[in-house]
Amino acid sequence: MGFPENAAPVDHKRRLFLANGTRTNHSSNSNSFLALSAGDPTMFEPFWRKMGDKCKVVIRGSDFMSYFSDVKNVCWFLEPKLGDAIRRLHGVVGNAVTEGRHIVVGTGSSQLFQALLYALTTPGGAEPVSVVSSAPYYSQYAEVIDCLRSRLYKWEGDAHSFKKEGPYIEVVNSPNNPDGGLRETVVKNRGDQGMLIHDLAYYWPQYTAITSAADYDIMLFTCSKCTGHAGSRIGWALVKDKDIAKKMIQYITISSIGVSKESQFRAAKIIGVICDGCENVQSTETDNFFKYSRHLMTKRWQKLREVLQHNRYLSLFKYPRQHCLFTGESVETLPAYAWLKCEEGIKDCEEFLRGIEIVGRGGKQFGADPKFARVSLLCREDDFNGFIERLHMGLQGEGKGH
Amino acid sequence: MGFPENAAPVDHKRRLFLANGTRTNHSSNSNSFLALSAGDPTMFEPFWRKMGDKCKVVIRGSDFMSYFSDVKNVCWFLEPKLGDAIRRLHGVVGNAVTEGRHIVVGTGSSQLFQALLYALTTPGGAEPVSVVSSAPYYSQYAEVIDCLRSRLYKWEGDAHSFKKEGPYIEVVNSPNNPDGGLRETVVKNRGDQGMLIHDLAYYWPQYTAITSAADYDIMLFTCSKCTGHAGSRIGWALVKDKDIAKKMIQYITISSIGVSKESQFRAAKIIGVICDGCENVQSTETDNFFKYSRHLMTKRWQKLREVLQHNRYLSLFKYPRQHCLFTGESVETLPAYAWLKCEEGIKDCEEFLRGIEIVGRGGKQFGADPKFARVSLLCREDDFNGFIERLHMGLQGEGKGH
Repeated sequence: MGFPENAAPVDHKRRLFLANGTRTNHSSNSNSFLALSAGDPTMFEPFWRKMGDKCKVVIRGSDFMSYFSDVKNVCWFLEPKLGDAIRRLHGVVGNAVTEGRHIVVGTGSSQLFQALLYALTTPGGAEPVSVVSSAPYYSQYAEVIDCLRSRLYKWEGDAHSFKKEGPYIEVVNSPNNPDGGLRETVVKNRGDQGMLIHDLAYYWPQYTAITSAADYDIMLFTCSKCTGHAGSRIGWALVKDKDIAKKMIQYITISSIGVSKESQFRAAKIIGVICDGCENVQSTETDNFFKYSRHLMTKRWQKLREVLQHNRYLSLFKYPRQHCLFTGESVETLPAYAWLKCEEGIKDCEEFLRGIEIVGRGGKQFGADPKFARVSLLCREDDFNGFIERLHMGLQGEGKGH
Repeated sequence: MGFPENAAPVDHKRRLFLANGTRTNHSSNSNSFLALSAGDPTMFEPFWRKMGDKCKVVIRGSDFMSYFSDVKNVCWFLEPKLGDAIRRLHGVVGNAVTEGRHIVVGTGSSQLFQALLYALTTPGGAEPVSVVSSAPYYSQYAEVIDCLRSRLYKWEGDAHSFKKEGPYIEVVNSPNNPDGGLRETVVKNRGDQGMLIHDLAYYWPQYTAITSAADYDIMLFTCSKCTGHAGSRIGWALVKDKDIAKKMIQYITISSIGVSKESQFRAAKIIGVICDGCENVQSTETDNFFKYSRHLMTKRWQKLREVLQHNRYLSLFKYPRQHCLFTGESVETLPAYAWLKCEEGIKDCEEFLRGIEIVGRGGKQFGADPKFARVSLLCREDDFNGFIERLHMGLQGEGKGH
């Protein structure tokens, strides 16, 4: 093969979240390695730049000084404007039912996931509650669960092979990170032993068809993957059961005494601008955030499929086309990540990619075979083009090498 | 006694963090109960209002979208401007050494405390590491430590009575929450078994004399108690050992993938305005945040001592006067909380206060006798005046009752 068996030593400053969330670089391809292992959603920046003053926020020195946002709400640290914006957004997009749900805001959906683990397992019994998700699963679930060696819960890996008796939590991530698959529960019903968390971070029109308003008991969303504002660390949970919501709030009170008001205030503004853009019948494709971002995703997937056409080494899944209630069209799933599979007996996709100076995240971290690797497609345009270019050059080299 | 033995049923909507951080109300005394159990630092609002446009921040839609702030820094999610502002602030105030320290930013100092527990105990041995602090100790330490029933660490309560063998962490909170005492380590040196966390949240000129630049290995600070911006949830740690800093960063990556950029950006601005005000030799008392806030605290403590003068039921500690390097004057410690002690055989101070419609936090939560209770003095002016008035009326009633 035309690439070194042992890839060039990785510049560790350029690797992102590769192992256990250790830091690495993110952007621009000026350095030799192109870091696409984190899902940093910078691709949406041009849209927000274009929106200009519409989504500008001004915060004065005396604003938001208190811990408290709304003492009349169970979630006393939720800014009322953000709660309203979230309900409006789900109404406009039609991707989730908010009626009869409590909104719990969190420092990203990661904190909400931990709040749920706490809420669903406290005060805890003799044995920790098992937590599973069907492989390939989001690599952070295992990290979060095992991090503090809690006696309340325990990561048990792939839901498909889960056989233990007793209470368990199944995390259903749909569309799924890393592979973009549409998911349902896997563990067979065992009376009232099972608890479900629906992580719907990617259930937005730029990634998939909105086929119905999700109506689960516990649903997680995040600004990072919806609007692209990862730096704000704002996520939210829609929770049916008041006692579960209260326990989540208790956890967030203990772990961080609430959530940044500045981020909440700004997220409310950003979400408002998205809703206005969607509701305005006059709006052009470029005013409607989801149309804009879907268009971008479509182009990226076209380029990616094109460059992989006729190559023997890397393959991608085919995704279903479904009728989308939001766009009114039949649309294909366009995952946030390329879930690449190595063919021709190549055993380690992360290593293969490293050979062509692309840093992805290997399948093993997602409970999958190392012949898979995840590469983020949410990067800035230059980085995406660099990715395509490296694939083009690298796979050409491969072809010639044989 | 002139107050009901069983205090009137508490309006639970008005109680703040009373038990395990469950929510309650915060401000204004329009309702019958005056909630002063949380340390919500709203007393500083008028200063920031007065500063006007100087401390206004403007954030555009395309700002801060990435997870990453500075990939060249170990703490990749720290906004460089905030790091600079923190170093400048400690330089201006003279309360801590920043040279040779890594700055780790957190979602409040609560998250940093958890990050430290993780950093100091991972990967963990057969037995959890004991964590102690000398009573009365900040009630949140125990809550945070016991919350997830970790196998890594365990709350062992009062450092004075700690006798166990093996590794331990002692948290030294100085000036101490709740009682304002100046603290040193309590557990006797046991070779290299002990690890120290210095929680210096209240080591600022409005609360105490700055007697030297703290030079400990691990120091915690927070905006909430320094500038009064509790809603921003910004804390920082100054950490000497790079490996400990790295592990803390790993924890914050897992638990929330960084810290709100909006809050960091604004905290940098606010801290900059404080530094400008302190450094400007022309600045009046009201331009210098610490002079302003110290003046406010002085007035509050005077009023409090006055109203308690000659009463038989509630007493306060006397605090030392020390030379302050920041103000250049001999100043008294002016704690953020009144640590009230009931006399005359009254056994439950929280209940006593409730009888005069003041909600404080009982001594038991701080590992102290129930004859103590903590009442926040950082509330808005109206609430503080309401507090003084209730004490005045209540203690008068008491006096007459006997």
